Amino acid sequence: MKLEITPLTKEAFAAFGDVIETDGAQNFEINNGSTVRYHDLANIETDAKVLVNIFRAAPLDYPVSVKMVERHPKGSQAFFPLDNRPYLVLVAPKGETVAAKDLRAFTAGGRQGVNYHAGTWHHPVLALEAVSDFLVIDRGGEGENCDEIYFDAEDIRLAL
Amino acid sequence: MKLEITPLTKEAFAAFGDVIETDGAQNFEINNGSTVRYHDLANIETDAKVLVNIFRAAPLDYPVSVKMVERHPKGSQAFFPLDNRPYLVLVAPKGETVAAKDLRAFTAGGRQGVNYHAGTWHHPVLALEAVSDFLVIDRGGEGENCDEIYFDAEDIRLAL
Repeated sequence: MKLEITPLTKEAFAAFGDVIETDGAQNFEINNGSTVRYHDLANIETDAKVLVNIFRAAPLDYPVSVKMVERHPKGSQAFFPLDNRPYLVLVAPKGETVAAKDLRAFTAGGRQGVNYHAGTWHHPVLALEAVSDFLVIDRGGEGENCDEIYFDAEDIRLAL
Repeated sequence: MKLEITPLTKEAFAAFGDVIETDGAQNFEINNGSTVRYHDLANIETDAKVLVNIFRAAPLDYPVSVKMVERHPKGSQAFFPLDNRPYLVLVAPKGETVAAKDLRAFTAGGRQGVNYHAGTWHHPVLALEAVSDFLVIDRGGEGENCDEIYFDAEDIRLAL
């Protein structure tokens, strides 16, 4: 099956996590009016330390054959693009199993970040066009925090 | 007095916080080798919730007359530029007072973030050239978390 790809919006993504963007966000002026603070854009979840990282992601060869998704049960994981370049987001709802029909694919704009809530199934980062950097905010600490599900029996294609 | 401005480096900034950058950072491959994770680049400190925000900052008129610095005693505050545009960082060491001679000014590159450790005195965000967005990771929660010191008696200039 070929996955449908739709634009990323807060409404469409609400079951999976947060869209980190200025559009529609609560905001107020600070610093004597020289700065606007778009405030509290992601629900960061962790039972331990919060890590800040940079992921440098090479684009895959499209169409991509989707082989797996992963989840982090103990914390959220946020991505914000640093190259103002669109990327893809592929998720499935929380739960013990994922079937191909549960997958949702979105095109994120270069000024949109995503924050996967703890337990949301997602594909590893899907850069487009060129090697792309993302600021990533996730959970550090002891204990296993990555489950994977493989789609061995299904042919799932992500085409541009 | 006119402040000297030097390039931002991890070494020069160590007393104030973290420089968030890939250069010199521990890293390893993930996602079947398609992604490099530059790992744990900032020490996020909080006694409460971690917030993710976007600051949209207008550049000030240079030379800037430095009137004040602020600190957040209950949490760190990280800035990462989203427009790949340099900016200035102005800090002073932790402590109960700040004099002009304690101030240190740095030019940060467009791919360098900073994380002010809890209690580090700093000037509000200093964009250059054009309105610039920054992803900001800081502390949310009850209680007063912003102290300010004003330099009423001193003429401190930040010139490009």
